[in-house]
Amino acid sequence: MGWEDNVRKVIPYVPGEQPKDKVIKLNTNENPYPPSPGVRDIIDNFNISDMRLYPPPDADILTGAVAERYNLEKEQIFVGVGSDDVISMAFLTFFNSDKPIFFPDITYSFYDVWADVYRIPYETKPLNPDFTINPDDYRGENGGIIFPNPNAPTGVLESVDMIEDIVKSNPGSVVMIDEAYIDFGGKSCLELIDKYENLLVIQTFSKSRSMAGMRIGFAMGSKKLIKYMNDVKFSINSYTMNILTQICGAQAIRDEEYFRNTVDKIISTRERSKIRLRELGFEFTDSMSNFIFAKPTEKPAAFVFEELKKRKIFVRYWNKPIIKDYLRITVGTDEEMDILFSELGAIING
Amino acid sequence: MGWEDNVRKVIPYVPGEQPKDKVIKLNTNENPYPPSPGVRDIIDNFNISDMRLYPPPDADILTGAVAERYNLEKEQIFVGVGSDDVISMAFLTFFNSDKPIFFPDITYSFYDVWADVYRIPYETKPLNPDFTINPDDYRGENGGIIFPNPNAPTGVLESVDMIEDIVKSNPGSVVMIDEAYIDFGGKSCLELIDKYENLLVIQTFSKSRSMAGMRIGFAMGSKKLIKYMNDVKFSINSYTMNILTQICGAQAIRDEEYFRNTVDKIISTRERSKIRLRELGFEFTDSMSNFIFAKPTEKPAAFVFEELKKRKIFVRYWNKPIIKDYLRITVGTDEEMDILFSELGAIING
Repeated sequence: MGWEDNVRKVIPYVPGEQPKDKVIKLNTNENPYPPSPGVRDIIDNFNISDMRLYPPPDADILTGAVAERYNLEKEQIFVGVGSDDVISMAFLTFFNSDKPIFFPDITYSFYDVWADVYRIPYETKPLNPDFTINPDDYRGENGGIIFPNPNAPTGVLESVDMIEDIVKSNPGSVVMIDEAYIDFGGKSCLELIDKYENLLVIQTFSKSRSMAGMRIGFAMGSKKLIKYMNDVKFSINSYTMNILTQICGAQAIRDEEYFRNTVDKIISTRERSKIRLRELGFEFTDSMSNFIFAKPTEKPAAFVFEELKKRKIFVRYWNKPIIKDYLRITVGTDEEMDILFSELGAIING
Repeated sequence: MGWEDNVRKVIPYVPGEQPKDKVIKLNTNENPYPPSPGVRDIIDNFNISDMRLYPPPDADILTGAVAERYNLEKEQIFVGVGSDDVISMAFLTFFNSDKPIFFPDITYSFYDVWADVYRIPYETKPLNPDFTINPDDYRGENGGIIFPNPNAPTGVLESVDMIEDIVKSNPGSVVMIDEAYIDFGGKSCLELIDKYENLLVIQTFSKSRSMAGMRIGFAMGSKKLIKYMNDVKFSINSYTMNILTQICGAQAIRDEEYFRNTVDKIISTRERSKIRLRELGFEFTDSMSNFIFAKPTEKPAAFVFEELKKRKIFVRYWNKPIIKDYLRITVGTDEEMDILFSELGAIING
């Protein structure tokens, strides 16, 4: 028997393309605006000699700043290398039962991948035809529940009441709400964590805080939940948040005014984009995120996707059941969106 | 049944203390010298607006620089968030059999923790009384093999021939050699990776390259091994190496002269320290790393540890069988070591 027989074989996730030429990049939900200018000052004043030391293992520079922003205690915050790291660690920590975990059939494409890697049984629950979640699907015996709110790639927002209903019905499971896109007009369910010990809320610096390149995600929940996650995390890697990321992240989250302005600009561009897309004959959900999940009615989505690519405009397309007629278009700057709409006009009427 | 019944419960690893006051810190094997000065320039010229974009998912800025340094191809390099991330990913990828993996009883304290987390059966093999490894222990059916070379916390170096012997005897397993400390005078077994497809060599930027704070580890091996690791890694987190870490790491590894000078200074301080420790009645292995694993013969190790701590000098001590009479002392600057020896003199003769 050779060594390859014992290898864990997986089908790797394929991330959105990262084109290197000058293009309009509306395919990975990045923020079109730079991070808070204070980040530049923090880096300028950083003593590179400090790189020689291990970073604070509890990442308290960053957990402290996040806790302050959300009026929580440091012990209610878990930080990780992007929300992917945070959620995968949460899967490993909390989805440890033989019962299946539940998540929607149309959702973030990593959930089933993590479940497979960690050998967690799962059941997907179909969305309603309008892409909303049916809360009744999330009752009954399960090993845990996760979904994004707003959902990805649909952009559809669910209410805090609906989430409370699901959390309340599942005292035997941890319910994770992945709020990667919540800052773009949604209402966070964070207010529920004091009431429900089994609710974990996950957010990220990659979207609303323009720091996808720095890899910062965080989870908020009861001290008990966070303690369990830290115990597992410390048994895998004590030092995951490097020192520069900690100080840059802490600075970014302190700059509330810049954050508000950036988010407001994106929301305003999104709403303007909805009007233009409607004029171009697209159908779409009322996205509350920094992307629009839109279906061209005049031409097939796959065709529009390829045509845009030829014109160096990248959006996201999945050739998968239910969603294969849709494009996921990240909200860029007004200027980028104007070029997109002009090219879309040419493609659709061409 | 409550949600806590399904939580993965682990006993968390306790890292060495990170004291915040002004102290002499010889407890976590950090490098006493700053990273390559070129790192400062790289940071100064970095456009923070680039933080808004996801980093290259294959981390090719960094894998490319590492490959160049070691005359390998990019596809032979896997990078991760510290060598802990790299090794834990390698455990998950390659130690996927029902047969036990083998590692020494006295070794890096994370191996058994990872095995427990990933539910990998393991068997520890006792070191010889002089802390060397007996290669005969690493034959026979197993699910994989790992040990550090030089070993930690003993500092004892094994020969490339001995490693080749073990790799050759185990074509059915992946053999991992954790070379975190190899740059301090040891000979790497890297030359064997062209000959043995099942050998994975792991190194780090945390010790010889003074970048513990940036969290960079890497593995080198056959393209096949690296591909398997990347597949697993991409199914957990596509983007683990943030952009600043990638560019700083790439710059640091290009500065070969600075690296050589730093390493030479540490080796010279280490050899000088051995003489002083001998004078103070310590017994120790002939460390080929940036620490010395030393046994005070005049006073108990635990006592010396506590006395040093009172004097704000931190070394590492484990109250564990076999090693409880030893201190692990990181090699600092000459100045730091002089203060250490002066205080040790006072403690031992006091």
